Amino acid sequence: MAVYTDVTDEDLAGFAAAYDIADVVSFKGIAEGVENSNFLVQTDDGESYILTLYERRVNPADLPWFLGLMEHLAGNGLTCPLPIKGRDGEALRTLSGRPAALFSFLKGLSPRRISAAHCAGVGGALAQLHLAGANYPARRPNALSVPGWRPLFDASAARADEVLPGLAAEVAAELGDFERHWPSDLPQGVIHADLFPDNVFFRGDAVSGVIDFYFACNDLYAYDLAIAMNAWCFEPGCEFNVTKAQRLLAAYQAVRPLSEAETAALPLLARGAAVRFLLTRLYDWLNTPVGALVRPKDPLEYLRIARFHRGISGPGAYGL
Amino acid sequence: MAVYTDVTDEDLAGFAAAYDIADVVSFKGIAEGVENSNFLVQTDDGESYILTLYERRVNPADLPWFLGLMEHLAGNGLTCPLPIKGRDGEALRTLSGRPAALFSFLKGLSPRRISAAHCAGVGGALAQLHLAGANYPARRPNALSVPGWRPLFDASAARADEVLPGLAAEVAAELGDFERHWPSDLPQGVIHADLFPDNVFFRGDAVSGVIDFYFACNDLYAYDLAIAMNAWCFEPGCEFNVTKAQRLLAAYQAVRPLSEAETAALPLLARGAAVRFLLTRLYDWLNTPVGALVRPKDPLEYLRIARFHRGISGPGAYGL
Repeated sequence: MAVYTDVTDEDLAGFAAAYDIADVVSFKGIAEGVENSNFLVQTDDGESYILTLYERRVNPADLPWFLGLMEHLAGNGLTCPLPIKGRDGEALRTLSGRPAALFSFLKGLSPRRISAAHCAGVGGALAQLHLAGANYPARRPNALSVPGWRPLFDASAARADEVLPGLAAEVAAELGDFERHWPSDLPQGVIHADLFPDNVFFRGDAVSGVIDFYFACNDLYAYDLAIAMNAWCFEPGCEFNVTKAQRLLAAYQAVRPLSEAETAALPLLARGAAVRFLLTRLYDWLNTPVGALVRPKDPLEYLRIARFHRGISGPGAYGL
Repeated sequence: MAVYTDVTDEDLAGFAAAYDIADVVSFKGIAEGVENSNFLVQTDDGESYILTLYERRVNPADLPWFLGLMEHLAGNGLTCPLPIKGRDGEALRTLSGRPAALFSFLKGLSPRRISAAHCAGVGGALAQLHLAGANYPARRPNALSVPGWRPLFDASAARADEVLPGLAAEVAAELGDFERHWPSDLPQGVIHADLFPDNVFFRGDAVSGVIDFYFACNDLYAYDLAIAMNAWCFEPGCEFNVTKAQRLLAAYQAVRPLSEAETAALPLLARGAAVRFLLTRLYDWLNTPVGALVRPKDPLEYLRIARFHRGISGPGAYGL
């Protein structure tokens, strides 16, 4: 939930005039996306758009890569926000002192309670995303992959045991494992890297759109699948739902079959994916002021998920 | 900005099924209203609605009065959200454990930078509101009028001088004045009581709707006009803009002329209106946790506004 920047009437009017769109008749800040300010814009012809203002946590130098990716994915059949170009041909401009872009509006609802049918939908959509992004030429390395985890951990390590006694040692041992055993020879390309339920729209059981590409980067496809499995297939109490995982993995493989090496690596990748979210949540947990209205997410959920993956005997535990 | 309650898919589906509306294709929490959770709902036929969940600060016993008032005002020509009745004829129902209602969607934009033309628009709309509400039969006393200010002040008085040395004594003297001199024989009826720019939509210079009736009550019409004058006619540095006040008051009087007694009382009512918002802002200022993401509004803005009204020689200072 986020609206960080206020947009004056004059700024909005000037911004809208740069586009070949009808008169703006409604402009509402919406609770979508945690890094940026998002507004739902409605025009007099009944069209809706999403206006995004990029806030400080997004590097402006990355924006052409993100917008180009969304245009590329939409052009290759994935339903995702399409950056709208202004009369000058530009999609990226400035509004109220921030980089800003206007996007097509996607119908659909983010699921609040995840069903196995949702997991099947998201598995298929993720594989489509991987295929659609395969020939996107520009590269963006993943700053939040294994080499980035150690410095992130160092920023929290001294206080980690305040959250759970022994947490620092447990995470340090995990990082050592990942640094020694992380695969480098698996298929890779553009990944979403943050495919949580907030970022997928459905109409009924069918995916109607994928949003929020601001963690997208080049990395292992199977790692992206592991992030999604962690995000969609654990129940609120962190119990693993193998039926959901089977559905997610089968739907993925119906579009893009996993290699044997990818399947074999899945438990390690899923542990790593869990520790990656544990680390960012731990940092936010330790650095959010007491009394802040946005409560940080519990990092220990992802510790329980990492432990689950560490405890299994192999990818068979996922129903494969 | 506010979305306090999460609504699950099942809850939303059950709620929507109670209405004769098309399939819901979009559901977004919006940053509108500070007391309740608001969602923009779009349906498959291109219609938009606002869904409001009433949070703890609204007394559920008052909701039938508020919804009845909006229906009454809309039926008497004021453009305001119209409560949509379900198939059972009821407008008020329960969603995710909260009282909830669905409303018609109003086109328009809340102005961020106020022009004299906006002030003319809001003056006319306020007078229309007063006329449209005149024969609404049910009464709701104003809990935030003079008798309510002393207990509100008592909750902050001990710490008021932390905000500004001498503030407690200055406010106490004002309250004494209001308690002795507040008029009781002026025209009264339903007032909005919170007609700030956030709560008025415009298309161009014309008012296209009035929202957020959750402070509405029975009280003096001229007091409501004074609240609006304070909200619309002071510049960001608290300088009084007499051109804006002239436009606001003239547009009001073109629809509902003020009596001589109302005009004469306006400086006192405007001082009281300023102190009323000073008191609620002071309470929030002293009771919002350090580091909270929603920063309370500066109470001293309204002290400066109260002092302006105390310093003038009469209603002529408003351009009357």
